[in-house]
Amino acid sequence: MPPLLLTPGPLTTSDQTRAALGRDWGSREADFIALSEGVRARLAVLAGVERTHVAVPVQGSGTFAVEAAVQTLVPRDGRLLVLVNGAYGRRIVDIAGRLGRAWVALEAAEDQPISAERVAAALAADREISDVALIHCETTSGLLNPLPEIAACVRRAGRRLLVDAMSSFGAVPIDGGRVPFTALIGSSNKGLEGVPGISFVIAESAYLQGCAGNSTSLSLDLFEQWRGFESNGQWRFTPPVQVVAGLAAALDQLEAEGGINARFARYRRNCEVLVEGMRARGLHPYIAAADQAPVIVTFLMPPGGWFKFQAFYDFLHARGIVIYPGKLTGVDSFRIGCIGAIGTGDMMRCLVAIDGFLAEHRDGRTAA
Amino acid sequence: MPPLLLTPGPLTTSDQTRAALGRDWGSREADFIALSEGVRARLAVLAGVERTHVAVPVQGSGTFAVEAAVQTLVPRDGRLLVLVNGAYGRRIVDIAGRLGRAWVALEAAEDQPISAERVAAALAADREISDVALIHCETTSGLLNPLPEIAACVRRAGRRLLVDAMSSFGAVPIDGGRVPFTALIGSSNKGLEGVPGISFVIAESAYLQGCAGNSTSLSLDLFEQWRGFESNGQWRFTPPVQVVAGLAAALDQLEAEGGINARFARYRRNCEVLVEGMRARGLHPYIAAADQAPVIVTFLMPPGGWFKFQAFYDFLHARGIVIYPGKLTGVDSFRIGCIGAIGTGDMMRCLVAIDGFLAEHRDGRTAA
Repeated sequence: MPPLLLTPGPLTTSDQTRAALGRDWGSREADFIALSEGVRARLAVLAGVERTHVAVPVQGSGTFAVEAAVQTLVPRDGRLLVLVNGAYGRRIVDIAGRLGRAWVALEAAEDQPISAERVAAALAADREISDVALIHCETTSGLLNPLPEIAACVRRAGRRLLVDAMSSFGAVPIDGGRVPFTALIGSSNKGLEGVPGISFVIAESAYLQGCAGNSTSLSLDLFEQWRGFESNGQWRFTPPVQVVAGLAAALDQLEAEGGINARFARYRRNCEVLVEGMRARGLHPYIAAADQAPVIVTFLMPPGGWFKFQAFYDFLHARGIVIYPGKLTGVDSFRIGCIGAIGTGDMMRCLVAIDGFLAEHRDGRTAA
Repeated sequence: MPPLLLTPGPLTTSDQTRAALGRDWGSREADFIALSEGVRARLAVLAGVERTHVAVPVQGSGTFAVEAAVQTLVPRDGRLLVLVNGAYGRRIVDIAGRLGRAWVALEAAEDQPISAERVAAALAADREISDVALIHCETTSGLLNPLPEIAACVRRAGRRLLVDAMSSFGAVPIDGGRVPFTALIGSSNKGLEGVPGISFVIAESAYLQGCAGNSTSLSLDLFEQWRGFESNGQWRFTPPVQVVAGLAAALDQLEAEGGINARFARYRRNCEVLVEGMRARGLHPYIAAADQAPVIVTFLMPPGGWFKFQAFYDFLHARGIVIYPGKLTGVDSFRIGCIGAIGTGDMMRCLVAIDGFLAEHRDGRTAA
């Protein structure tokens, strides 16, 4: 039996989503064009920006879409302020540097949200900053940065905001009607519960249409990708047709569940069961409850030397539960995800398995 | 029932390949690492270069891998000679131009192979050319360029050869032991009969290891992608896990069929049945038989004004047969593919459907 994936993605998907992968599609056929157009339209609606923005899917992982957004939306003579409190913020710095875009980073500790006040001060101090990049949920730690406050402050300062919402889109409500952004970047295989293979940028049409010629990459040129969809509904280059069909099926299920608010509520219950269960077992989260996204939880390694991550990982793996191998934060920690086609029963199953580990490694040792 | 796809890809795939898409995988788990490593090793063996080259998969369509190869393998101060006799050659010119690489094109008519003699003359005339890019099978027309002769001539001139073998790899034997190339670029969803979502570059290890820092793209940096695989067997960024599993299953079936020689023989039979059947019906191929790859066949529009492509396309579509909508060549023509999990019975089915069209549109008109 395939394992229960408690990771930041690829996730545990539903049987219906995987069943949708089981047929061939001609990528330039009317039925596939309709499928792609439906996905694009629904993504913009989910972000609350269907009147002002367009969803432009990109083949590849989330990083491909982030790079496409930086390539295409940050002007060649622009300056990008990157808000960094984890690995995904640092990745945007890497992307901007390679592309030769001027950038400046505003950093916070990995367990601290970026505050809107600091962003406002940075923008006031440097008038040349044209664009701001924010990681909404930093998957490094599971921390949720204060998107609404930062979006308001960036808008007040007259700059553009690019939101990397890779692990939050679909999982956490984002109302683009009240939270202004130029672009929001998401992926098929996180909160939307599709399979990996496509990501997307939901970009402000009025701005995107002026972005011709910015991208030095052909594959990752978001403007040309958009123009391709607008001209004939087709992907410029061969799309992963089965992955698109999987995402369409996953969006059907998201709607049937009651939309992103209902999904957020389910993920929050998963997260609460996990965090409370772990606390009761003496294992504590790294991020303060107020800043924790119900996406992935980083737990601190317990003191005393008895907790070996590899043994913990292997113990769960042998019981059909997969957590993320390795840590990204600077502190000794491990992460357990709470998104995907899973519920509180799955979180309980994980906790029961952890009981087994604790009995063997901690309590056994204490008794000995 | 899903249609019979007679296109250059996405193709008709087998039930086993699509069944392999039906499970979740943790992308950083030992079983998925083993799956990816197996795919990488088998790709290098299929190209006959497992001792000297490494296969580096890239998320996205074939164009993503072509761009990754140009980004990473053509030095920033290099000069690329692009051999152009169709749309895919022109695409490499576009990629090189955007990336700021110096390039020069050697062009031939779309129905004419590029000759090794012309390549030799171009290389002799311009000592600054460092790299040569060749489209093996130009999917624009279905023409097969003379790879062995060009490879020998490029090697004699001491330059590097990048082969875009997108539609030929898996379909046409390429023995890298006798046909020297620095890199060969292929895709999951052509002759290998996987589903779309990943492509790959099979690159000479000794050369690739000196290519750090060439790529201005993070996502498409082939050197870093390779280093990622070599360091821990993992994809740097989230891979389309189901697509990788589909490719692994497709490679199993390629081996069971008897390898690329056996597949080439099947495709050649498909192509012969198609071309002979069309000739018997008064419809003639654009490309001379000696230059035709058994991948996709371009047929000239018959004269007389009775043949309307859209009516032809719709007639076949209504009978569950999908051909490629639209032409790429400069001449009035249409294309029918002969690759995928299909056999001569499928080609006969297509010909029988075409009989129906001809009876209605040509013969009916003649009689009237």
